[in-house]
Amino acid sequence: MTVIITAFERSPDGGKGLARDTRVRWALEEVGQPYDVRLVSFGAMRKPAHIALHPFGQIPTYEEGDLVLFETGAIVFHLAQRHPGLLPDDANARARAVTWMFAALNTVEPPILDLSNTRIAESDKPWSKERLPLVEDRVRHRLVQLSARLGDADWLDGAFSAGDLMMVSVLLRLRPSGILDEFPKLAAYVARGEARSAYKRAFAAQLAVNAAKPQAG
Amino acid sequence: MTVIITAFERSPDGGKGLARDTRVRWALEEVGQPYDVRLVSFGAMRKPAHIALHPFGQIPTYEEGDLVLFETGAIVFHLAQRHPGLLPDDANARARAVTWMFAALNTVEPPILDLSNTRIAESDKPWSKERLPLVEDRVRHRLVQLSARLGDADWLDGAFSAGDLMMVSVLLRLRPSGILDEFPKLAAYVARGEARSAYKRAFAAQLAVNAAKPQAG
Repeated sequence: MTVIITAFERSPDGGKGLARDTRVRWALEEVGQPYDVRLVSFGAMRKPAHIALHPFGQIPTYEEGDLVLFETGAIVFHLAQRHPGLLPDDANARARAVTWMFAALNTVEPPILDLSNTRIAESDKPWSKERLPLVEDRVRHRLVQLSARLGDADWLDGAFSAGDLMMVSVLLRLRPSGILDEFPKLAAYVARGEARSAYKRAFAAQLAVNAAKPQAG
Repeated sequence: MTVIITAFERSPDGGKGLARDTRVRWALEEVGQPYDVRLVSFGAMRKPAHIALHPFGQIPTYEEGDLVLFETGAIVFHLAQRHPGLLPDDANARARAVTWMFAALNTVEPPILDLSNTRIAESDKPWSKERLPLVEDRVRHRLVQLSARLGDADWLDGAFSAGDLMMVSVLLRLRPSGILDEFPKLAAYVARGEARSAYKRAFAAQLAVNAAKPQAG
């Protein structure tokens, strides 16, 4: 059954791979599942046809026959559960890999999202500069803990899993801030993710959409 | 096998049910699984023994024989997958219920967390009052979308699921702000969650820990 995902017609990052469709493209490449992409404009994302697929008016969405999903966590988990390659076979190891998916999205990403908001969406606000160090320190606090747990391992819990895919994707959002480089073990972890051939294909595919276009916003 | 979860020795909310162990207690009650609770102090949460269970030094954790999990999303999902009562049997409906779990934790909770931070952790900062309306509007933006999708339904996608358990739990964090009452359909949705006997047992159990103690912090 053909899988169709949605992505930005023009990504706000101009093709740096930070839009969330890259996470889904990466998972699809890891499990070797072909897919089609429907590009949507910012205008179309607010229209009823898109809201029917994604109640929060975002990308990506995932269509597979009658099944419609949104939320990168749910889409990556769906793919990981139905195809080999992203979750271990052992039930306990599988539960731990799922734990890292949730940790990436609910514990590590929120302060990183706040940092992006502070640096971009709130950059013209009077408090922006004064508040920035506090937000950066919240991110660092999480990275200290994450780096300690990762230690010298290649991946968070044994073999590469959907948990690593999600954690690397979340950490990549930090790159523009420079904070990732303060944590050499995490920077190397992210680099290991980027070095995977599936990631490279996903990155190239999103870049091909955006490279020829002037940056939005 | 005996399940052991951790919870605050003294919850910062003094027993209002907003600490995250309530979510796990609720799921355990929904599936009829008995459990033991180990209470941890703020000091103990920073010690190696607890960090070995939870790399980010938080509660709750979940121990079941050799299996150790953290992240409420992962724990609730683990319970939902192994016991009937929290996920539908149909594969597509199951994937959609999981989508609502991720939506609760990665799309709806982050702005609510930011609101809590603004109202409490940053209340003494010079920007706090000026920034509050912007943060509140981010929360409202999500609630408008969520309320539109819920419409007049009782639950987000058919029967009550782990997705509703997580969404109701996240929305409950809004109660101190008064914003939930601006959205009557969502307020009624949360009330339906609270009216479930499993939720009532979970709430009573966490209250019993905290009621007799002076509030922390």
